[in-house]
Amino acid sequence: MNHLVTLTTDFGNGSCYVAAVKGVLLGINPQISILDLSHAIPPQNLRYASYFLQACVPFFPSQTLHVVVVDPGVGSERAILYVELGEQRLLVPDNGCWTGLIEQSLQLHRVIRVTERRYWRPQVSTTFHGRDIFAPVAAHLTLGVDPTLLGPETSSWVELPRPQLVVAGTSLTGEVVFVDDFGNLITNIPGHGFRQWDDRAVQILVGDTEVRQRVHHYAEAPPDLPVALVSSMNTVEIAVNHGSAARSLHAGPGMRVIIRLTERAM
Amino acid sequence: MNHLVTLTTDFGNGSCYVAAVKGVLLGINPQISILDLSHAIPPQNLRYASYFLQACVPFFPSQTLHVVVVDPGVGSERAILYVELGEQRLLVPDNGCWTGLIEQSLQLHRVIRVTERRYWRPQVSTTFHGRDIFAPVAAHLTLGVDPTLLGPETSSWVELPRPQLVVAGTSLTGEVVFVDDFGNLITNIPGHGFRQWDDRAVQILVGDTEVRQRVHHYAEAPPDLPVALVSSMNTVEIAVNHGSAARSLHAGPGMRVIIRLTERAM
Amino acid sequence: MNHLVTLTTDFGNGSCYVAAVKGVLLGINPQISILDLSHAIPPQNLRYASYFLQACVPFFPSQTLHVVVVDPGVGSERAILYVELGEQRLLVPDNGCWTGLIEQSLQLHRVIRVTERRYWRPQVSTTFHGRDIFAPVAAHLTLGVDPTLLGPETSSWVELPRPQLVVAGTSLTGEVVFVDDFGNLITNIPGHGFRQWDDRAVQILVGDTEVRQRVHHYAEAPPDLPVALVSSMNTVEIAVNHGSAARSLHAGPGMRVIIRLTERAM
Repeated sequence: MNHLVTLTTDFGNGSCYVAAVKGVLLGINPQISILDLSHAIPPQNLRYASYFLQACVPFFPSQTLHVVVVDPGVGSERAILYVELGEQRLLVPDNGCWTGLIEQSLQLHRVIRVTERRYWRPQVSTTFHGRDIFAPVAAHLTLGVDPTLLGPETSSWVELPRPQLVVAGTSLTGEVVFVDDFGNLITNIPGHGFRQWDDRAVQILVGDTEVRQRVHHYAEAPPDLPVALVSSMNTVEIAVNHGSAARSLHAGPGMRVIIRLTERAM
Repeated sequence: MNHLVTLTTDFGNGSCYVAAVKGVLLGINPQISILDLSHAIPPQNLRYASYFLQACVPFFPSQTLHVVVVDPGVGSERAILYVELGEQRLLVPDNGCWTGLIEQSLQLHRVIRVTERRYWRPQVSTTFHGRDIFAPVAAHLTLGVDPTLLGPETSSWVELPRPQLVVAGTSLTGEVVFVDDFGNLITNIPGHGFRQWDDRAVQILVGDTEVRQRVHHYAEAPPDLPVALVSSMNTVEIAVNHGSAARSLHAGPGMRVIIRLTERAM
Repeated sequence: MNHLVTLTTDFGNGSCYVAAVKGVLLGINPQISILDLSHAIPPQNLRYASYFLQACVPFFPSQTLHVVVVDPGVGSERAILYVELGEQRLLVPDNGCWTGLIEQSLQLHRVIRVTERRYWRPQVSTTFHGRDIFAPVAAHLTLGVDPTLLGPETSSWVELPRPQLVVAGTSLTGEVVFVDDFGNLITNIPGHGFRQWDDRAVQILVGDTEVRQRVHHYAEAPPDLPVALVSSMNTVEIAVNHGSAARSLHAGPGMRVIIRLTERAM
């Protein structure tokens, strides 16, 4: 039995809602080991949550249970899903917040709609399913409840539109998919090949701004100048050493990023 | 022996003071399981702390020890209390920060003034009792020290004034008791009955602003419009879907909220 | 075997980078007990990190492993160090972030340059050594890997310049070394003796502003007035009760603080 339960929410760091979720989890199974992943997902930001999970979930030990409460539809008809994906287990609202994990080539074993009220708190509020449904269901799973008892298996769920990547002739057009706390812009443009290109042979545009320098790591970059490098997710990243690329370039998720190869690069 | 110790402070997320408290706890008893509830209680805000504890403490397993360091009087003559309340144990400054828990009908088993220096750090600073008194006392409790050794039992302690709720004829006058990280306004007006009232039969005022729509859950609300619903604490809540009611209505804790029933509702 | 691993980073509260580090740690050794110290070290602020570690690391149980990722030089030639200091173990970038601990009179047992790639992740990015080197090395250490296998012992490393303290005749000149989340200014001027001095016999200057009152604890201070007291690190501290001394005095780390004793104090 893996007793590790991770929490990812948009409740805010130090929110009483996070504390209540922890109380309910441990109140049902005091052996649970709770690990905070984040409570600072920007409110209701499903794309952020999706990228966040993609960047960390695959590293966890087999059968870890990841509880994700980024849930603008709380109280409505939206479903709650129990998912087995690769070696990980998820408990998520059916709003696409786990799309980033689907995009990776992890094997999807099963998806269950959580409908059986027996594992919920007796009184379910319309505003706080994290406490009233997610936490008690997660706790029961760690106690060994068979997931098939949670509800019926399903083969349809909500997915977010995937970020676009267009290859046309010698240009690659992608977008910023994530801005980290340093203000670095993470794109969906693959980073392989990037290291080999000749500096004069490639043009990089973030929106309308040209990023003229490429580096291997942050410290190599002159201060205040936007540079391109390969991110830890192996995609193209735009950064400003000791500064914020997001602020310098007025850029955020969804902003178009173009890489053009000139003849030299071919 | 329950080795679970929760921490609630106003030290700030990532404060070195929190880290020092954790070090002292584990330095005395490495078996302690530390759970962060919040370190983002607004500085010295006892009312916030009081509501916070009320919203989460009752869910924890029996004999959990909750250490609360929201302590503007640190170093002064204010006492430190060890409390057994319902199935929970608290270590709190005697400044009323646990009033919210007293208001609930949990049974108060005993309150002890923590005076015995044997369980404190040898040198006690005047500015950091979290590290020098709360942490070592909590650690010793988890080692099985009998609470009666901590100091004398007491029957008097500080309580915060309780939020007012006035029922006069057909109107209920309460107040905002808490603003969560989404900007939702939680009031002390009971939510039962609320769902039955006819929309045209009830008038809701937050300060001088009328809230014209009631919903069952957030997603039902049109964007940018303040709505009323029943909170997860089963009281009346004012929210703005994908926005902040606190900002929209310039409202915060203590603001008056009135619900008037017209003839239709009677 | 002590399975406690603490994390101190500048990744930001709730960063996906912190979550990834946790995943890698537990993915290699699910028995690790992870404790967050801080993820809110100001970005790339080595002096802050240094003071932070000094204020909390010494309290932890023997053989705790403290992983510190405040690492502006990530990807460059800067080394990574494994350190045994007093009863504590550290895994730190070689950039001086642990200087505060060296200043204390803890015994330095050994310092090893982490060079053996066998304990790293197979693919090492240039931007995220926290995930690709620090986490797997730490996890292997908790599994009992002999530190001498990590790389060669070394006797040279980077240290930050130490804050100045000048004693000249009857005046002590030091500086603000840390600002906490309350805005309190912690200096490097020793606090012993401070309590004995006669109020009229000592003049305290923070930059050009005179601090006219001394107190024993915060609650003793009138609101809005800067006061001096002895900090929890036993040095002189400047505070504003229910306010921020940093804001009131426009002060931050490095600002000069002078204490002059008049004849009365001698």
